[in-house]
Amino acid sequence: MIAVDWGTSSFRAFRVDRSGAILGRTSSRLGILNVARGEFAGTLRSAIAAWLAEGETDILLSGMVGSRQGWVEAPYLPCPAGPAEIAAALVPVPFEGARARLVPGLTDRDGDGVPEAMRGEETQLLGAMDAMRGAGVACLPGSHSKWARLAGGRIASFRTYLSGEAYSALRGGTILGRMMTDGPPDAAAFADGVARSGQAGHLLHHLFGVRTRGLFGTLADDASASYLSGLLIGHEVRAALPADGHVSLIGSATLTALYASAIAHCGGTPRVMDEDAAARGLALVADAG
Amino acid sequence: MIAVDWGTSSFRAFRVDRSGAILGRTSSRLGILNVARGEFAGTLRSAIAAWLAEGETDILLSGMVGSRQGWVEAPYLPCPAGPAEIAAALVPVPFEGARARLVPGLTDRDGDGVPEAMRGEETQLLGAMDAMRGAGVACLPGSHSKWARLAGGRIASFRTYLSGEAYSALRGGTILGRMMTDGPPDAAAFADGVARSGQAGHLLHHLFGVRTRGLFGTLADDASASYLSGLLIGHEVRAALPADGHVSLIGSATLTALYASAIAHCGGTPRVMDEDAAARGLALVADAG
Repeated sequence: MIAVDWGTSSFRAFRVDRSGAILGRTSSRLGILNVARGEFAGTLRSAIAAWLAEGETDILLSGMVGSRQGWVEAPYLPCPAGPAEIAAALVPVPFEGARARLVPGLTDRDGDGVPEAMRGEETQLLGAMDAMRGAGVACLPGSHSKWARLAGGRIASFRTYLSGEAYSALRGGTILGRMMTDGPPDAAAFADGVARSGQAGHLLHHLFGVRTRGLFGTLADDASASYLSGLLIGHEVRAALPADGHVSLIGSATLTALYASAIAHCGGTPRVMDEDAAARGLALVADAG
Repeated sequence: MIAVDWGTSSFRAFRVDRSGAILGRTSSRLGILNVARGEFAGTLRSAIAAWLAEGETDILLSGMVGSRQGWVEAPYLPCPAGPAEIAAALVPVPFEGARARLVPGLTDRDGDGVPEAMRGEETQLLGAMDAMRGAGVACLPGSHSKWARLAGGRIASFRTYLSGEAYSALRGGTILGRMMTDGPPDAAAFADGVARSGQAGHLLHHLFGVRTRGLFGTLADDASASYLSGLLIGHEVRAALPADGHVSLIGSATLTALYASAIAHCGGTPRVMDEDAAARGLALVADAG
């Protein structure tokens, strides 16, 4: 089968066997924001032409391709949801010569009834399900970091933190960013930021400290971006860390390394999963469907 | 005397008598960012030429004009500081025909030793000192909101929250802003945001809810800017509100009204001070000096 992870800014496709083993892969910058309406089928066909020619006829797609801005909108499925529920809610899209279906995103509500939403992460979570033995807490860091609880082989609930996008906006749009100079990631400054997140005072107060520490010379201009990153990730981790401290991390090598370091700093036990969870998750759905 | 409140983006000057009563006023957009190095004396002279011609010879300046980016840098004075300490630390600047002096900004350290800084707000606080009988908590809302504790007629300590600048950056640089449409301030949505700030979960989680509430149709696009504002101000107020709930508000009519509403919502007792605190504060320093 062909597993496609099609997000806002990137396209990744995998040829996988029923066990989830990856036989081939391709990727491009053609995220859904770079694909004109009506061009989704053509874009997909060009990217996977070789595998179609070799006889593949089953395509599963996950991510923002199933959003209102994507190919076809696949309605959100409420939690708890596992491979069976997700397989039963696939949305077919017109594609000549193969069966192409969209994986629905998931929704949940927090304790105060405010809605939650994910698209694409549910597939990565399913891909980590086996390694997590169907239970525990997983974190998928990113612009909108997801913290999900798995139970009984299903995604039971999840919460989102805007940390990644807040970092970019604060760096790009405030006085904090104006004093930052580029430099290599600074592990000591990052750890300093994580430590600060555990001190008294609200995040909005801690943010001003990034400015004053620079002003009073206790934070170098080329270290302050790492400090801000540690401060925000530290706040997120302290708010989301489960009581037993165990967190499986799913995502890019760079981000999972940062989160692993923050989780360990906050007394947790991180475990970094491999990056191909999405392909394995789609194989699992195909198998259940 | 002539009292000048010279900030980053605006210039305001007042002619005041020794009691702080305002006899005349002028203002312009010539904040320090719009004044070239070496042009401070000339800019000031043009703005207050009429009063100088009438015999004024004493000029006190406060705000970012005393920063590294301003006319001359006036070193920060540590808290606690009152009119006497501030008057003893004035920094003269060269100005023919009159005595012109800069009011120093203040510095403090929070419980974890992270430095704090203000420039200009100390003068507004001194101007509110009499009405507050020299004690209590005052809030000066803005890009960098200040919460100061007054005691014994001095500014005892203060904390800064980056709420205003975070609002602008989140609105301008994240998906939250992309769905916001302009509309009149929405008091109900603002109150909704303040209420949300008291619910479970971290600010970084609450921020994502601005997105999902829009996505799921429980927050209108033209109400979400007010909701975000209420959410951030609510977080700040809950973190900073003193035990007795009493807060004197100093600043523009628009901002103090928003903060008064949030403080009342959170169980506090706001009291809005008049907008001319800075002129009165400078008169007090002139009198003490």
